[in-house]
Amino acid sequence: MFKINEHYGQLNESYLFSTISKKIAAYAAAHPDAKIIRMGIGDVTLPLSPAIIKALHESVDEMGAKATFRGYGPEQGYEFLRNKIAETDFRNRGINIDADEIFVSDGSKSDTGNIGDILGENNTVAITDPVYPVYLDTNIMRIGQSEKIHFLASNASNNFLPEIPNQKIDVIYLCYPNNPTGTVMTKAQLEKWVEYARKNDSLILFDAAYEAFITENDVPHSIFEIEGAETCAIEFRSFSKNAGFTGLRCSYTVVPKALKATNNKGEKIALHALWNRRQSTKFNGTPYIVQRGAEAVYSPEGQQETKALVAYYMENAKTIRKGLLEKGWTIYGGANAPYIWVQCPAEASDSWGFFDRLLDECHVVGTPGVGFGKNGEGYFRFSSFNSHENTKEAIERIKNWKI
Amino acid sequence: MFKINEHYGQLNESYLFSTISKKIAAYAAAHPDAKIIRMGIGDVTLPLSPAIIKALHESVDEMGAKATFRGYGPEQGYEFLRNKIAETDFRNRGINIDADEIFVSDGSKSDTGNIGDILGENNTVAITDPVYPVYLDTNIMRIGQSEKIHFLASNASNNFLPEIPNQKIDVIYLCYPNNPTGTVMTKAQLEKWVEYARKNDSLILFDAAYEAFITENDVPHSIFEIEGAETCAIEFRSFSKNAGFTGLRCSYTVVPKALKATNNKGEKIALHALWNRRQSTKFNGTPYIVQRGAEAVYSPEGQQETKALVAYYMENAKTIRKGLLEKGWTIYGGANAPYIWVQCPAEASDSWGFFDRLLDECHVVGTPGVGFGKNGEGYFRFSSFNSHENTKEAIERIKNWKI
Repeated sequence: MFKINEHYGQLNESYLFSTISKKIAAYAAAHPDAKIIRMGIGDVTLPLSPAIIKALHESVDEMGAKATFRGYGPEQGYEFLRNKIAETDFRNRGINIDADEIFVSDGSKSDTGNIGDILGENNTVAITDPVYPVYLDTNIMRIGQSEKIHFLASNASNNFLPEIPNQKIDVIYLCYPNNPTGTVMTKAQLEKWVEYARKNDSLILFDAAYEAFITENDVPHSIFEIEGAETCAIEFRSFSKNAGFTGLRCSYTVVPKALKATNNKGEKIALHALWNRRQSTKFNGTPYIVQRGAEAVYSPEGQQETKALVAYYMENAKTIRKGLLEKGWTIYGGANAPYIWVQCPAEASDSWGFFDRLLDECHVVGTPGVGFGKNGEGYFRFSSFNSHENTKEAIERIKNWKI
Repeated sequence: MFKINEHYGQLNESYLFSTISKKIAAYAAAHPDAKIIRMGIGDVTLPLSPAIIKALHESVDEMGAKATFRGYGPEQGYEFLRNKIAETDFRNRGINIDADEIFVSDGSKSDTGNIGDILGENNTVAITDPVYPVYLDTNIMRIGQSEKIHFLASNASNNFLPEIPNQKIDVIYLCYPNNPTGTVMTKAQLEKWVEYARKNDSLILFDAAYEAFITENDVPHSIFEIEGAETCAIEFRSFSKNAGFTGLRCSYTVVPKALKATNNKGEKIALHALWNRRQSTKFNGTPYIVQRGAEAVYSPEGQQETKALVAYYMENAKTIRKGLLEKGWTIYGGANAPYIWVQCPAEASDSWGFFDRLLDECHVVGTPGVGFGKNGEGYFRFSSFNSHENTKEAIERIKNWKI
């Protein structure tokens, strides 16, 4: 009999957000009159902005005419987009990243999952706890539940910023601004991680999908703001949250050419070459029209519209923070991130208990912290991607809630 | 030091078609007046048809309005598309496949590459030789150059249809209509493979990306036309070639729920559940607008337009077949496929030698057979995706060629 990947048997049966969706659907079916407000999943709600819609229409027209039709594009992304990214997101910020170090793709979920393809199976891997479930699940798929997977505790005692490991770890996933806690690292804090990685020959997989939400000056938007990071880090960026591309699908991954590992023959191998080979072989590029949409994010109109989208959601983050502080709850995040991480009040049994009571008594949905790891138990994540009206109403309901 | 996937060191340095592109670019730079006609890569040249363009514009407008905007979609694809596929491509042909057995994705290259994620590393694997390079390369990435990889010889002595293995093989890749040879299997021939797989508990990975080009009645469009295939096969389908989606990116993979393997605890595990977990965790769905474009393929206008595209390319296949037969060359394929597989004339040294002379003396590009495997040596692939005019001119040049 042909054999399956047995590691899949060690995964939770379903992805966290699938479980939540099913719970909401069941509740809504049983309570058809409940006006449920969703502040759970990190999905945007505002439409794509005019500059992007215009670029999409124009490129659709190009695809309908023989002279301008485009078939297979470069697997790494079109130059027009890679050039704009390198210029706007990096070089204009004084970061030395070239266009050909940027790999355009269909999503950070794909890339943070697929990056394991180019790594060895004997690496020790560190992920934070709580964590975005994809990092953990994709490692279990690859190497199984294993002592090689280390959890870096993020909890109230360290303000949900994990400490540098006191042992040698090969591959470290960091996500800042953090999903799920909304916490951020200052430049000085991130420098310590880069220093650790360079000293220990570690690889940092840095997920910066939420960088557009940073409001404070000493918080880096890219790990490549830190000197030497180009020799020890890969960065994942996304158009999902800053420009509302969750349904349009575009992101990019930066693999600097200076990032090298030593193979078992003692040769220096550039990870850029490996990722390029992976993407050329197992991916056929992001749709041309989507890449034209992403390019429009960098036009003057696109930049202005995108900033307005982020500001809209950050107004919600303020509403949530203010309301919950007034309620007397302990909270983290929400200042440089669209997520607010809440300590469940003493009256709640645990984070799933709090989820159930909040849904049943306030008709408000969030995400139970334990879904992100055991250190998330007793905590809860609110996202700020709903409308101003719904967010205000949800917070009012919570403030009036006799828990 | 963190470790890389050492198997990458066992791959050819570049993907076949990257090598060819570089050769053409170098030749064009040195001979700027040469009017080069490309019949190499399998990329379409006709624009997207009106029904698809209309659907794309409409869905772009939906994405620009708050009431109709769509964020994250189901990782498996929207129901509107899965339903149309199940109905049109399967149930209307008498094949019992349900909508939830269909996983919409961004390309068959991705899916035929990623399918390895859910399979064990100890499987023996068979691929044909010659073969679409992705099957081989993605297996080398996963398990390395290995005796577990078996090559099924396709050559003139078996009319480029491999024989059933006389040993037990766990996983078998079949692609019919075949890329690169353009050959097809009759229903009776494919039945023998299904019988073999059922008897040996093997898994068939059936790539039917070119099914729309089938003109003969006894050639199956889907492996699921064969009784029992739902217990031993996964099928890959694509909108790239039938509807010209190479730049728009949409395909689908059928994983029947009846397809099960036994895990190492002796439990029956549905591959449907594994692929669903893989896609939910490492993929965020195909863009909404692209899925609306794919849905339009199934409208009455879309069906008519798509058939016209295929007919256009098959007219080229006829032109190529006729011309090369008149030239006295030995050819395969081209009757139910957009590829014509040509035995290089005796005057050519080998398939790369033929490539170079054809480029230099006729300014015509094809693909050297050896690029698809060692049994491809001495053969050459022409694709029929260029315009009628260019195809006719290329064939005239070849006919007048004093090789």
